Amino acid sequence: MSVLIDGLQYANWSEQIFRQLKEGGVDAVHATITYHETFRETVLNIEQWNRWFEAYPDLIFQGSTAADVKLAQETGRTAIFFGSQNPSCMEDDIGLVEVLHKLGLRFMQLTYNNQSLLATGCYEAEDSGLTRMGREVVAEMNRVGLVVDMSHSGERSTLEAIEHSARPIAITHANPASWHPALRNKSDTVLRALAETGGMLGFSIYPHHLKGGGDCALEDFCSMIARMIDVMGPDHIGIGTDLCQEQPDSVVDWMRMGRWTKRMDYGEGSAAAPGFPPMPSWFSDNRDFGNISSGLRAVGLSDDEVGRVMGGNWLRFFEESFGAQAAGTKVDTRVAQ
Amino acid sequence: MSVLIDGLQYANWSEQIFRQLKEGGVDAVHATITYHETFRETVLNIEQWNRWFEAYPDLIFQGSTAADVKLAQETGRTAIFFGSQNPSCMEDDIGLVEVLHKLGLRFMQLTYNNQSLLATGCYEAEDSGLTRMGREVVAEMNRVGLVVDMSHSGERSTLEAIEHSARPIAITHANPASWHPALRNKSDTVLRALAETGGMLGFSIYPHHLKGGGDCALEDFCSMIARMIDVMGPDHIGIGTDLCQEQPDSVVDWMRMGRWTKRMDYGEGSAAAPGFPPMPSWFSDNRDFGNISSGLRAVGLSDDEVGRVMGGNWLRFFEESFGAQAAGTKVDTRVAQ
Repeated sequence: MSVLIDGLQYANWSEQIFRQLKEGGVDAVHATITYHETFRETVLNIEQWNRWFEAYPDLIFQGSTAADVKLAQETGRTAIFFGSQNPSCMEDDIGLVEVLHKLGLRFMQLTYNNQSLLATGCYEAEDSGLTRMGREVVAEMNRVGLVVDMSHSGERSTLEAIEHSARPIAITHANPASWHPALRNKSDTVLRALAETGGMLGFSIYPHHLKGGGDCALEDFCSMIARMIDVMGPDHIGIGTDLCQEQPDSVVDWMRMGRWTKRMDYGEGSAAAPGFPPMPSWFSDNRDFGNISSGLRAVGLSDDEVGRVMGGNWLRFFEESFGAQAAGTKVDTRVAQ
Repeated sequence: MSVLIDGLQYANWSEQIFRQLKEGGVDAVHATITYHETFRETVLNIEQWNRWFEAYPDLIFQGSTAADVKLAQETGRTAIFFGSQNPSCMEDDIGLVEVLHKLGLRFMQLTYNNQSLLATGCYEAEDSGLTRMGREVVAEMNRVGLVVDMSHSGERSTLEAIEHSARPIAITHANPASWHPALRNKSDTVLRALAETGGMLGFSIYPHHLKGGGDCALEDFCSMIARMIDVMGPDHIGIGTDLCQEQPDSVVDWMRMGRWTKRMDYGEGSAAAPGFPPMPSWFSDNRDFGNISSGLRAVGLSDDEVGRVMGGNWLRFFEESFGAQAAGTKVDTRVAQ
């Protein structure tokens, strides 16, 4: 039986949204739990999730392994897998990688738009690739089973992460730049390298990543996915809606500006359109995944292909990615000079 | 009357060293109080300094403005000016720049060897210059009167900091790479740009920055300074000994590795010489500044030039640098795209 997995959401979570997940038959979601929050602040966010898990045990539970996706399906609930969109949660401390994995973090972006201690974000003028610390941290993420996510990173950093990582990486929420040339979307060079190394792309429905923005037609989105099967093959693509349902615009300000500037930064928006953009009519909440499945069939995907895109591929990736690296992997004891 | 100012020390401070400062007639020292420590950890270090200021009021006090150098001289004490060798103390929070200045921080390096959120350190393979956040933070440091120190930064980042900063910057402890080509030493291009914009170089006596290491002769060191007057002029050079007196080797491990790697990094050292290197015979503690003055006279500097190098230039720089930026300076309200 096929599974339904969303590769990224950052909703303003509530009982209503948890019920919509169930109604929509979503078996698992990679949920962003932190952006620029420090470790301690991230733990506060985890505490909030723990309260939700305690309050709504019939709707959601925390996902740790791929087996939890099947458990969610069997029990009619949604498994929530934690992720971070910036490495702020690990601060400057490589020891926090293992601690965060133990707390359930399964994805961590090396950057969010700007330069981080690890790599370069897609909004910097220059991308210098993985830093000295970045190479150390990727190896540590590989060791414990924390997935490297390069959704918001620059081209060179993304290619270097793909090359340097001993395990497949993910771009959980982005689209091909060949379809819509936004800074956040990815080149075919990146997407081919990603697929060739066993990585995963989650197609985004965030309007700034769509050709035509919120007016993008479902058919256009699904045709793009069909074309990307030609580029990347059918096994390394999924959905990563980037659904930021019911978030106030103060949240997009935090995402864009964190604490790094005292001035206004509009990110993907503009002075004329500073807030969250309106979603396409065919995807406004978790009950709308059926529109995407239907759309994919309408542009010619087989049932098998639709199943892979809607969750089968993410499930395989979860199976391969969340456990500790095989023992006996060679470990250098000195930093490369 | 001339003053004696050391542009950087990181001793294992004690009553004995405070007495040596007095005995050596040192009027002011820029003391590193933090490397990779977070804001809260830096405040703990400040608390330790507060205990020392309370315990030894006849020897030391906290320096805030250039006037404190004169006060120190008049009262036979040493003014301690705080500095950080990495921006870890401000974490990812531009608002901490003003807070740290209020607590007395007067110098902050944008990087310590590795990539930071602000700029690139001299040990990274690629230097991408000031980051988006780096440009914001330099402007904020300019506003409040916190000096940009690029001692451990890469070439491009240093040049961009000189260009971007509205106020003169410092390289508090380094030597010319034309004399000793260590990664930490600076090109004549950088040093000329530094001097032309009113900045300051402090000549380092840390053995890894010296031609011949700890065996470097006093005459060789002083001849290099004399030559640099030809390159930079007599007004933009001083001393920045980088004296790490009586520090255990565990401290150099912290300086080099912080929390960014689990593996050994020898920094400027090597597996054969992992710890702090032995100092030259002519400078082992704060009572030895007279050797440098004598050495400078011996290679032909005038009394006036010696006075500038030994403290006069740093005093002028302190006068210009530690106060708030002139009111009415134009402030952009949006991040440059």
